Amino acid sequence: MICLKNTTAIYPGSFDPVTVGHLDIIRRAASLFDNLIVVVMTNAKKAPSFTVSERVDMLKKTVADIPNVKIDSYEGLLADYAKKTKADVIIRGLRAVSDFEYEFQMALTNKKLYPDTETLFLTTSAENMYLSSSIVKQIGSMGGNIRGFVPDVIHDFIIKRLYGKDE
Amino acid sequence: MICLKNTTAIYPGSFDPVTVGHLDIIRRAASLFDNLIVVVMTNAKKAPSFTVSERVDMLKKTVADIPNVKIDSYEGLLADYAKKTKADVIIRGLRAVSDFEYEFQMALTNKKLYPDTETLFLTTSAENMYLSSSIVKQIGSMGGNIRGFVPDVIHDFIIKRLYGKDE
Amino acid sequence: MICLKNTTAIYPGSFDPVTVGHLDIIRRAASLFDNLIVVVMTNAKKAPSFTVSERVDMLKKTVADIPNVKIDSYEGLLADYAKKTKADVIIRGLRAVSDFEYEFQMALTNKKLYPDTETLFLTTSAENMYLSSSIVKQIGSMGGNIRGFVPDVIHDFIIKRLYGKDE
Amino acid sequence: MICLKNTTAIYPGSFDPVTVGHLDIIRRAASLFDNLIVVVMTNAKKAPSFTVSERVDMLKKTVADIPNVKIDSYEGLLADYAKKTKADVIIRGLRAVSDFEYEFQMALTNKKLYPDTETLFLTTSAENMYLSSSIVKQIGSMGGNIRGFVPDVIHDFIIKRLYGKDE
Amino acid sequence: MICLKNTTAIYPGSFDPVTVGHLDIIRRAASLFDNLIVVVMTNAKKAPSFTVSERVDMLKKTVADIPNVKIDSYEGLLADYAKKTKADVIIRGLRAVSDFEYEFQMALTNKKLYPDTETLFLTTSAENMYLSSSIVKQIGSMGGNIRGFVPDVIHDFIIKRLYGKDE
Amino acid sequence: MICLKNTTAIYPGSFDPVTVGHLDIIRRAASLFDNLIVVVMTNAKKAPSFTVSERVDMLKKTVADIPNVKIDSYEGLLADYAKKTKADVIIRGLRAVSDFEYEFQMALTNKKLYPDTETLFLTTSAENMYLSSSIVKQIGSMGGNIRGFVPDVIHDFIIKRLYGKDE
Repeated sequence: MICLKNTTAIYPGSFDPVTVGHLDIIRRAASLFDNLIVVVMTNAKKAPSFTVSERVDMLKKTVADIPNVKIDSYEGLLADYAKKTKADVIIRGLRAVSDFEYEFQMALTNKKLYPDTETLFLTTSAENMYLSSSIVKQIGSMGGNIRGFVPDVIHDFIIKRLYGKDE
Repeated sequence: MICLKNTTAIYPGSFDPVTVGHLDIIRRAASLFDNLIVVVMTNAKKAPSFTVSERVDMLKKTVADIPNVKIDSYEGLLADYAKKTKADVIIRGLRAVSDFEYEFQMALTNKKLYPDTETLFLTTSAENMYLSSSIVKQIGSMGGNIRGFVPDVIHDFIIKRLYGKDE
Repeated sequence: MICLKNTTAIYPGSFDPVTVGHLDIIRRAASLFDNLIVVVMTNAKKAPSFTVSERVDMLKKTVADIPNVKIDSYEGLLADYAKKTKADVIIRGLRAVSDFEYEFQMALTNKKLYPDTETLFLTTSAENMYLSSSIVKQIGSMGGNIRGFVPDVIHDFIIKRLYGKDE
Repeated sequence: MICLKNTTAIYPGSFDPVTVGHLDIIRRAASLFDNLIVVVMTNAKKAPSFTVSERVDMLKKTVADIPNVKIDSYEGLLADYAKKTKADVIIRGLRAVSDFEYEFQMALTNKKLYPDTETLFLTTSAENMYLSSSIVKQIGSMGGNIRGFVPDVIHDFIIKRLYGKDE
Repeated sequence: MICLKNTTAIYPGSFDPVTVGHLDIIRRAASLFDNLIVVVMTNAKKAPSFTVSERVDMLKKTVADIPNVKIDSYEGLLADYAKKTKADVIIRGLRAVSDFEYEFQMALTNKKLYPDTETLFLTTSAENMYLSSSIVKQIGSMGGNIRGFVPDVIHDFIIKRLYGKDE
Repeated sequence: MICLKNTTAIYPGSFDPVTVGHLDIIRRAASLFDNLIVVVMTNAKKAPSFTVSERVDMLKKTVADIPNVKIDSYEGLLADYAKKTKADVIIRGLRAVSDFEYEFQMALTNKKLYPDTETLFLTTSAENMYLSSSIVKQIGSMGGNIRGFVPDVIHDFIIKRLYGKDE
């Protein structure tokens, strides 16, 4: 058997927190590429709800059963991280038109900064189209039910942190 | 060396005719996946400007230098073709918001019809964003200059067919 | 008990054929308004796949269990039909941005032509967002599986008409 | 006379301040549903320009002549307020595509959190399409003329609060 | 007085028929540029409802009172017409997002074909946003009222042609 | 030679900092209108990265070779500035759909506040479509390469200010 490629894909994001929509993208990307790195991008300007190490931990618990996925974090330009990891592919999920425009702009910018990495988009599954980390936080912090919106394995931790109580 | 995956991607379209925008997507997809099949989808309802065999021939000339690309044609559902070829990935290029909506709808439909194949989107390069087969035909059929819009190797053939004269 | 309103809503469309997405809108609208008329609008210019009487029949079978729904057909302007039926509300389902723009234009036009009727929009359920009559016909006519896309009670009739065979 | 339905609609928003665009939606919704509650949603994160009680007061003055409209305020999830008031319908006005995407996301989320309430959208009248509370505040705070943008009955109060002077 | 520029603008379109929305764009463009040519572009593929000479005549009647406007027609590429007339500017009206995408594509294409002419966009007035030639024809051909949608001076002619009767 | 018009155009923006995309719009607008004023709009609410005088200085260096362009700054409503300068035209560049919606809203608002000035839109060149002041700042502040994104004459100043070092 001849192996033509050995591809590395990176899936960058805030994952603040990771949702079942993210998990769906992770599973599908992991089945297509040899290696997948899910990388928590930290941005000095944005004030996240969860710390970097909390977000990395939640991701590790979430993907524990997927063999070819690693979790990482990075502070800096995505194009620099792509270069550092020799990534072939940047993976992004698309939900809606407003997503699309921003993603398009970032894909063209990253291509200009580091042409060796290609951005590939997957469509979010229909049942996750309404889902985002910020909606999860908005609902969770007001005591709403977020079961089914976040991976089961981290549900209680998120509720505790957002709403300050054990369910 | 261990080879984890051996991926097959299909890039379906009308290619009526193939443009430099298509060629850009083909080159980039061919560098990411082990095998790439560019497939001319024929649709009984649409009246194309070029016959299926003309479109296949133009594609073959256009990709002659890319080793892992094959050209095919198919009349039927894309999901059935994906099943037949055991494709891991359907490749589509995105130019604009109106593209995006239609593509999103088709990606969700194909996922429902045949869940084993994933649709992946690449962004068109900025300089090809204005380009489409129909604009090429519109300009070419009125005697306008389409150099740089279509692959050089098929330029004269397209002009002859659209405008009925040797340049 | 005082009854302040007795509202009539109309839900116009081609219904060529009716899909489970349409049926979802019908059920939800029927629960909100006193009377709901689903009206097959005929348009001399468009060549439908099913005749008006076939489309009316499919709708009748589809809504047989919903008490406050009537089926009708009309050739002419929607604003005139709204006036004729003294409709309070025109119901339209929204799937995507491209839907939205056309629907917005029609709503403003109908408001100008007949200000007494208000257009109200419902969002399509997430699982029906990819669904349209034309996709059903495209898949069905190529022998694809349309179970789950159209109401069960009319599935066999549609397959027979589109694909010319008993399943 | 038989009364099939007795519907309650809620129209949530920031109303910071209420504009003639909001008033237009209120009038049209009040004519379609038996009861309409306009509810000022308070959100701990956003810093409004007007206090909750100011916003409630402005709304009360604005709708004083419409009999079946009540004004309320709520801190929490809209889905919880819908449940508490047994609302049949959530009313939202649509102006533009960017509105539409956010509204779509919220409608699907609210449907998931509390399936008994349906979100219905009205289109903003053409002459109010450019209008928003934030544009009113931007113009008013720089001393621009906002007559015709806000209900006459609250115009002077808004100017005094935004620009700090009697007109 | 020194005259730095003497600009020629062209406003291309089908004008099948001219609407009050077109007239609004014409008046505003004529006030900004020294010379304005409104040009009926003919396209062999599209079957128009009015002949070229009818469309030119309707435009001439419509703009009779605006001194610096001329009416012309052209069969061919817009870029070639721009070159022939040494136009500085192509004028296009924008109504909505779907307009915008197509217009953007055409502007970039025309810039590539003939870089000396710049495409400038005006926004349609809010009250004309719902208006298009095809809506006028749809309403008019079914006997609906199109007063206020088309210039008064050509209203009767349009009704006669579309509906085949004197009003 | 008769001079029919003597037009003044204003090109408002934050220019925080000016990019090659802005410069492209300035050159093209300057070739179409007799006088062009590029005006730095200051907004008390937004915290800019560069002071008003820095932004004015960068613009002056950038347009030093274009004779009919002046640089100005203004705190207040754009409609008031248009009135003060008797501007015929407000120039805005359009990149994408999300731009378009906001710009459309502002154009209609400005038209209502001061009807004598017309907003005209130019399309950004394809190669600048991914470019914005905020992307320049994001890349520059993380030490990325912004050559080709900002005018050469101000590149070193921007790097020094954003990244705090001489390149």
